[in-house]
Amino acid sequence: MKPVAEQMDIIRRGAVEILVEAELEEKLAQAAAKGKPLRIKAGFDPTAPDLHLGHTVLIQKLKQFQELGHEVNFLIGDFTGMIGDPTGKNETRKQLTREEVLANAETYKEQVFKILDPARTKVVFNSSWMGPMSAAELIALASRYTVARMLERDDFHKRFTGQQPIAVHEFLYPLVQGWDSVALEADVELGGTDQKFNLLVGRELQKQVGQRPQSVLTMPLLEGLDGVNKMSKSLGNYVGISESPKEIYGKLMSISDPLMVRYYELLSDVDLATLARVQRGVGGEPDGMHPMEAKRALAREIVTRFHGAAAAVKAEEDFLQQFRQKELPDDIPDYRCTSDKAVWICSLLTASGTVSSNGEARRLIQQGGVKLNGEKVTNAELELEPTGEAILQAGKRRYVRVIFQP
Amino acid sequence: MKPVAEQMDIIRRGAVEILVEAELEEKLAQAAAKGKPLRIKAGFDPTAPDLHLGHTVLIQKLKQFQELGHEVNFLIGDFTGMIGDPTGKNETRKQLTREEVLANAETYKEQVFKILDPARTKVVFNSSWMGPMSAAELIALASRYTVARMLERDDFHKRFTGQQPIAVHEFLYPLVQGWDSVALEADVELGGTDQKFNLLVGRELQKQVGQRPQSVLTMPLLEGLDGVNKMSKSLGNYVGISESPKEIYGKLMSISDPLMVRYYELLSDVDLATLARVQRGVGGEPDGMHPMEAKRALAREIVTRFHGAAAAVKAEEDFLQQFRQKELPDDIPDYRCTSDKAVWICSLLTASGTVSSNGEARRLIQQGGVKLNGEKVTNAELELEPTGEAILQAGKRRYVRVIFQP
Repeated sequence: MKPVAEQMDIIRRGAVEILVEAELEEKLAQAAAKGKPLRIKAGFDPTAPDLHLGHTVLIQKLKQFQELGHEVNFLIGDFTGMIGDPTGKNETRKQLTREEVLANAETYKEQVFKILDPARTKVVFNSSWMGPMSAAELIALASRYTVARMLERDDFHKRFTGQQPIAVHEFLYPLVQGWDSVALEADVELGGTDQKFNLLVGRELQKQVGQRPQSVLTMPLLEGLDGVNKMSKSLGNYVGISESPKEIYGKLMSISDPLMVRYYELLSDVDLATLARVQRGVGGEPDGMHPMEAKRALAREIVTRFHGAAAAVKAEEDFLQQFRQKELPDDIPDYRCTSDKAVWICSLLTASGTVSSNGEARRLIQQGGVKLNGEKVTNAELELEPTGEAILQAGKRRYVRVIFQP
Repeated sequence: MKPVAEQMDIIRRGAVEILVEAELEEKLAQAAAKGKPLRIKAGFDPTAPDLHLGHTVLIQKLKQFQELGHEVNFLIGDFTGMIGDPTGKNETRKQLTREEVLANAETYKEQVFKILDPARTKVVFNSSWMGPMSAAELIALASRYTVARMLERDDFHKRFTGQQPIAVHEFLYPLVQGWDSVALEADVELGGTDQKFNLLVGRELQKQVGQRPQSVLTMPLLEGLDGVNKMSKSLGNYVGISESPKEIYGKLMSISDPLMVRYYELLSDVDLATLARVQRGVGGEPDGMHPMEAKRALAREIVTRFHGAAAAVKAEEDFLQQFRQKELPDDIPDYRCTSDKAVWICSLLTASGTVSSNGEARRLIQQGGVKLNGEKVTNAELELEPTGEAILQAGKRRYVRVIFQP
């Protein structure tokens, strides 16, 4: 195992919070001393097996723990998934059958094992211990937490004060999730920042039953392609990991430079030194990686992850080709103009042989069929200053590059 | 079965609230029409098998339903009793073993079958359906109610706003009690006024699963011997039903007349006509029953209930004997006074030979050693009107019955 300080640097990458750092360092040191890997837990809802990159932030962190030699427990929350929400008030949570849950779990595995090493991943289902639990045992579990503390959870608090209904069983979910940590004897639990409360419940329940409380590591919610809202399917700002190579590559090439740095931090496997070079490049420092180069490398890396290297190369070639085609054809004829005064646009189109007469040029402009440097021309009397270059387009296919040489 | 109106008169006796009266009348009518008795439910906590009269208010009401031909379900809440309160915050609720619960249940039966007819009573344990319930089923049950509605319950509300802790599992108890009504398909549930919230949860859960919702009947909490606080062991103002005949009889003879009326209403088997006569007697109406006579009858009835008729007769004899002994000796000498004017008290004491001189009489009065009809005399110049009788006492043992015969 790597030295604790080095492990901590990798673990801290992209994390929002680690509770408690000193405790985790101690665990890492003990794990190294005994040669006994830490047990890392992360829970996933079996209702949404169609993952996007936002979901993979946690999985990347699990992978890092795995590469540091620790044991990953990929927990599928099938117990709660099978319960669903019988009140029918929340349409998004429907009751799943055992078969659906198992099918979803298979889809999950198929997707996450593109990131995680199957040989070092334990896939566990919380129905294994929650299924046999009796109502009496659940009541005993429920006695371990107070109503007031539950209402401290951000979303409960907001709904309660906003007079939105909270069903009583919703108070049981954090306890069930916490009990999962007891059942697994987890050393570390990972979750999104929105999971912090539940992760701390696990910590507390472990303490109550005499286990060493798990360390808690929260990861940020990944911003979507817009760089503002969190990545989500309903907002349409997502990259689905089962999308085509072409789609994934194209979407990633569309993001801003600062968002690219974020994606590097949270999604890429590049080492910390390379990450630093990407950051310096976006910061405009001369020893950084050029942002366009960095973006292409990121897009290739992510496509490679889910579709393989060959698909990534192909996606890049197609993208560059399409980009060029979309901008301008390769074979635009030049037309040199030696006038030293402003020139009427119709004259230029006629003189260059792009159209057959000034009358045709005027008609085309009036119909909206002429573009100057990609922008539609609306004034048929327009005159161009005789400096530099200009690209004129008439209709769909006729181009000319006007080069002023007065 | 009796006509519905007559049944309702009996059912209403002493009840605080019936929800909803019209519904209950309809149920009674249907029961009569189909010859199918109603299923009456009342739940009891197996932790306190040492009953006092306060507990028997509900049992009396059950008896009345039983005598009207309905089926009584005496529910022992052993499921919740066995769970106890593992937080240890509430010292009064300790976890019971299965053996203790069964032993308590036996004690219960022994006590309640002095009131209820065992042949027409079903003793049921909620562990029969709650024991096999899984955690998943309990979560589904918990989804049927909201946190906000739970917090409407009086005691929860008070504790919540007063920042007293409420453990999450306490929210599950009303749901378990409500589910008992579903399991029993109860037509009517009885409870103390403090149980109203829980009784209504049962009503609601029944509706949710498509059962006809139970009618709810609340009975008042019985006042203790002081007539002010509710009867409770810790306040010492109780009559335990396993106390001796002598204690029960004596305690009941000590209550005030208005409290006696209350006890008649809530504890006695006398019919409504007799109850009305007791009320009129206490109201001072000439056709009422004399309060002292009524009180003795009540004391006899209650002792008979728990110890048999012979014990009641004996208790009454002993009580009267003790009362007389305490008040006055049997052999008080008479002294006939023929004066037709008011007579000085000292003259009477001297003339009757109770004391040896007016001086001694005056001294005794000044020392507080003389009583007139049991009341201490403070004025040595007191004159008695020459009518009727008067008992004078000088010192501890000297008595005289003065009979005025002007």
